[in-house]
Amino acid sequence: MATISEVAARMKLESPLVAATPVEVRNDALARIRASLLAHKDEIFAANAADLAAADEAGVAPAVVKRLRFDEHKLADVCAGIDDTIALPDPVGRTLLKREMDEGLVLVRESCPIGVIGVIFEARPDALVQISSLCLKSGNCAILKGGSETMRTNRALFELIHAAAVEAGLPEGCLHQVEARADINELLGCDTSVDLLIPRGSNAFVRYIMDNTRIPVMGHSDGICHIYVDGAADIEKAVRICVDAKIQYTAACNAVETLLVQRSAAAELLPPIVAALQAEGVEVRGTDEVRAIADCAPATDADWDTEYLALIVSIKLVDGVDEAIDHINRHGSHHTDAIITEDAATAARFMQLVDSAGVYQNCSTRFADGFRYGFGAEVGISTSKLHARGPVGLEGLVTYKYKIFGSGQIVGDYASGKSSFHFKDL
Amino acid sequence: MATISEVAARMKLESPLVAATPVEVRNDALARIRASLLAHKDEIFAANAADLAAADEAGVAPAVVKRLRFDEHKLADVCAGIDDTIALPDPVGRTLLKREMDEGLVLVRESCPIGVIGVIFEARPDALVQISSLCLKSGNCAILKGGSETMRTNRALFELIHAAAVEAGLPEGCLHQVEARADINELLGCDTSVDLLIPRGSNAFVRYIMDNTRIPVMGHSDGICHIYVDGAADIEKAVRICVDAKIQYTAACNAVETLLVQRSAAAELLPPIVAALQAEGVEVRGTDEVRAIADCAPATDADWDTEYLALIVSIKLVDGVDEAIDHINRHGSHHTDAIITEDAATAARFMQLVDSAGVYQNCSTRFADGFRYGFGAEVGISTSKLHARGPVGLEGLVTYKYKIFGSGQIVGDYASGKSSFHFKDL
Repeated sequence: MATISEVAARMKLESPLVAATPVEVRNDALARIRASLLAHKDEIFAANAADLAAADEAGVAPAVVKRLRFDEHKLADVCAGIDDTIALPDPVGRTLLKREMDEGLVLVRESCPIGVIGVIFEARPDALVQISSLCLKSGNCAILKGGSETMRTNRALFELIHAAAVEAGLPEGCLHQVEARADINELLGCDTSVDLLIPRGSNAFVRYIMDNTRIPVMGHSDGICHIYVDGAADIEKAVRICVDAKIQYTAACNAVETLLVQRSAAAELLPPIVAALQAEGVEVRGTDEVRAIADCAPATDADWDTEYLALIVSIKLVDGVDEAIDHINRHGSHHTDAIITEDAATAARFMQLVDSAGVYQNCSTRFADGFRYGFGAEVGISTSKLHARGPVGLEGLVTYKYKIFGSGQIVGDYASGKSSFHFKDL
Repeated sequence: MATISEVAARMKLESPLVAATPVEVRNDALARIRASLLAHKDEIFAANAADLAAADEAGVAPAVVKRLRFDEHKLADVCAGIDDTIALPDPVGRTLLKREMDEGLVLVRESCPIGVIGVIFEARPDALVQISSLCLKSGNCAILKGGSETMRTNRALFELIHAAAVEAGLPEGCLHQVEARADINELLGCDTSVDLLIPRGSNAFVRYIMDNTRIPVMGHSDGICHIYVDGAADIEKAVRICVDAKIQYTAACNAVETLLVQRSAAAELLPPIVAALQAEGVEVRGTDEVRAIADCAPATDADWDTEYLALIVSIKLVDGVDEAIDHINRHGSHHTDAIITEDAATAARFMQLVDSAGVYQNCSTRFADGFRYGFGAEVGISTSKLHARGPVGLEGLVTYKYKIFGSGQIVGDYASGKSSFHFKDL
């Protein structure tokens, strides 16, 4: 059997062929994948049942088991996601710039696939389908490693996906699945073959990947998100949004950790917000000032730098938007932060100066998601500022190349002054 | 005196303010820098004379000393570069996407500066001016470390540049220069404050940086460039281009290393190409097949993977465009590769399948340069596929953020089906 390095090296050489396939072939691959998943759903469900039974036997918590499940409902979701992805415009081969440098010398910047992408993701079978679809649609080759708790489901899904892609005319080597945890370390060393790594999972895991490879990594480290409730907030909106941002999906990176409330309006704003959160079972932690207004647990300095991933929220009072911005830029993780205010100028200042991938006015931080942004799906959320920031859909999976169409030009003629550039965008 | 970590941390907090400055302020800063350099040129030239004298005393080679020089000619060049940069459109605050997600819920993707950029560059005073101009125009803060051989010139230039920027209304902390080599290592550890590192210099140096920091790095490792001379080439163009690509600036990363010539036309193509190169003092190395047609030194396997940065070129025969593509994708560094052919279909195949930042038809690989692409100037050339690829101008120094303007929306309503998205690009 080929090693991961050999697989990656071959994939690297084949990736230009995958990149060159017409969008019709790539869309056909997605349509065939969809059809094949539906036609073989019983096999998939059987494999998933075996995974679930094994998880149950191993004593995995019911909340986690829920993520492992792949049923009719999840199947319908991924099929809808494939339909959305097919409908998205081709991200490849777009002319991003066309410029005449001189007569008979034309520069073109054209979007193209990144090449070979390694994706390491959590035990969620629907993620495997989403990621494969996005990689194929964008003309990339991918090496996939899913969580081992759904190994049987992953295997069943991958075989169907791979066979459907090859039937559509894509090369055998366009997708590869690895199963052993040890393969991840071998993958990290493939920096001459793999163009991008996308690790999904815990902060510690993403950091481990970043520290142990030369391959560029797209991932996020933390999700420490804030809501600043301004004195000019609509109280009802503030309450609804703070509650949603905390409880709608507590384990998500875009759930809120800290509420910053304008001091001058705290007496009015705090009691309903704190009461609504506590009514939903949220542990509220506040500074002394906060606790003087609304009964809650004490907050410590560590709270401002902690991603809870649990039903806990911390609250602090601030003078106004500038102190809120300063707190967020110091303690946040540059992920997603919101302001609740009816004052457009205050909102504009917050959204300009908060240095985060997402800055929202009057809506929940939970909107930070590729599907909700209309990207069809996402391969992850990036808190890096390079390449892709925020939810990453198809556009994050392409790069560009420069083509120059000349007619014999040499640089010597431009250096000597014999010829000169006249840049003219076409 | 503040440590680099302290400087970087303060810069990180000030960077949103720099990002928020109107383009008029940033252009005014550039105009003031230009005026100040001209007004104080005698001080700059005196500092440079001291650097040159010290280099001379230290026995630095004349070819290198040439790069250290900052004279009337270089001053005129950097002033012209500043004018070009002022004239370029503002890369910041551009609306890249505007989408109604639902009624009263609007998503905007807007370009914004990256934030804090560390640039470590070779001993070339003009580079300091170019890099500062590009960083300021794009609303970024920058920590600059130039080559120590021009320390006096760098100091004189930086003081003028910094003072002019502050006069224009930019914060004191928008630019910082470091001089000690030890500061580089401290800078590498500032991964919570510095958003991007751009190292320029030798391959070994760039690799050292990449291996010793968690900060994203934009740089290039090698420049192993190829020209494929197709059977359908115009011989005269082929000769001119091969000579220019080798000799016009031998030390550049975009100079050619290897010529691949179609076997069926080699008897006709090789003799004039080899003769022209040898007439310019180039050492030509060829395979046995090549040497049977044109007299030259023998090539070994190591030649296909070597960046010469010297008057050496290697030549190999190939069956046709597909073998050329395969050789380039295996041995090249994904920098810049050219095809010489009058056949448009062959050129299209080459330019599609060669996996490089620049793929050219009928012109010299030496065109890979930000100035020649019409970018005003460049901070470097990237062989990474992430973020920016090829010559990096202003556009490579910005990222984007997502803004959502809501009116009280929560995700719970969309999850429950009470509300639904209707994506509509505005």
